[in-house]
Amino acid sequence: MLSIRPAQAADVPTILKLVRGLAEYEHEPESAEATEEDLLRDGFGPQPKFHCLLAEWDGAVAGFALYFFNYSTWKGRPGIFLDDLFVWPELRGRGIGKALLLEVGRIAVANHCGRYEWLVLDWNTPAIEFYEALGARRMRQWVPVRVEGEALERLAQKH
Amino acid sequence: MLSIRPAQAADVPTILKLVRGLAEYEHEPESAEATEEDLLRDGFGPQPKFHCLLAEWDGAVAGFALYFFNYSTWKGRPGIFLDDLFVWPELRGRGIGKALLLEVGRIAVANHCGRYEWLVLDWNTPAIEFYEALGARRMRQWVPVRVEGEALERLAQKH
Repeated sequence: MLSIRPAQAADVPTILKLVRGLAEYEHEPESAEATEEDLLRDGFGPQPKFHCLLAEWDGAVAGFALYFFNYSTWKGRPGIFLDDLFVWPELRGRGIGKALLLEVGRIAVANHCGRYEWLVLDWNTPAIEFYEALGARRMRQWVPVRVEGEALERLAQKH
Repeated sequence: MLSIRPAQAADVPTILKLVRGLAEYEHEPESAEATEEDLLRDGFGPQPKFHCLLAEWDGAVAGFALYFFNYSTWKGRPGIFLDDLFVWPELRGRGIGKALLLEVGRIAVANHCGRYEWLVLDWNTPAIEFYEALGARRMRQWVPVRVEGEALERLAQKH
């Protein structure tokens, strides 16, 4: 049986395992550099920088959804960005991912958000079809751009 | 002469004009639904949902950069998402957009951010080349996905 609950500070080791599990699934295990201290400090202080839901199947953690609020200057309202959605492979096919995705959508509506957004890999056709069936549309013309690490340090020194 | 400063509550009418100017530039003038009340409430309260820099040229507002903090569970650190970057057409070619982009990058570094991100239109080759010259890379495989308006209301009612 499935249940979903907000993660607590005591869940940080579990969240980190899920974050690492997702990084492995995306073939980038070495990219998951976060520590338990990082997630505890940033997610469970007075002004959390992210929020996390845990899905449990028969009482054992099966997956997670991790999100934060962004902002739309066109809507003049906050939105939700779903950063991580992951279910352990052996527990897939039970609707757990969908339940997490919908629950975050309900949180977006409850918070009067104008938008609910995430990213999908362009080769992940089953995921894209699943999202579109739920009413999501791909922002086909838009490409994410990123500066990080040493490139960010260098950018900050330019003028 | 160029100067850059954080926007104040009194700048909200100016910010809204810039938001609408950007929406027109993107051929979606009707999408900019935000009001002055929205931007004042969300950007200038005790826990601002966005931050805004104004660029002035010879003392007159020339453009803006509007950003908010996001989060990277891989880095275990916040990041910055640059939502809006716009310079009035008649004031382009003076390096104002670049100065705004770099200033937000410096704010990212000062806040120990792991990443600095934004979106670019895939047909905007000059912008893409400009960003890449600054050390940014396109996340080519990732596509933004969005649910909004009535589709979001419907999603929240599914199970």
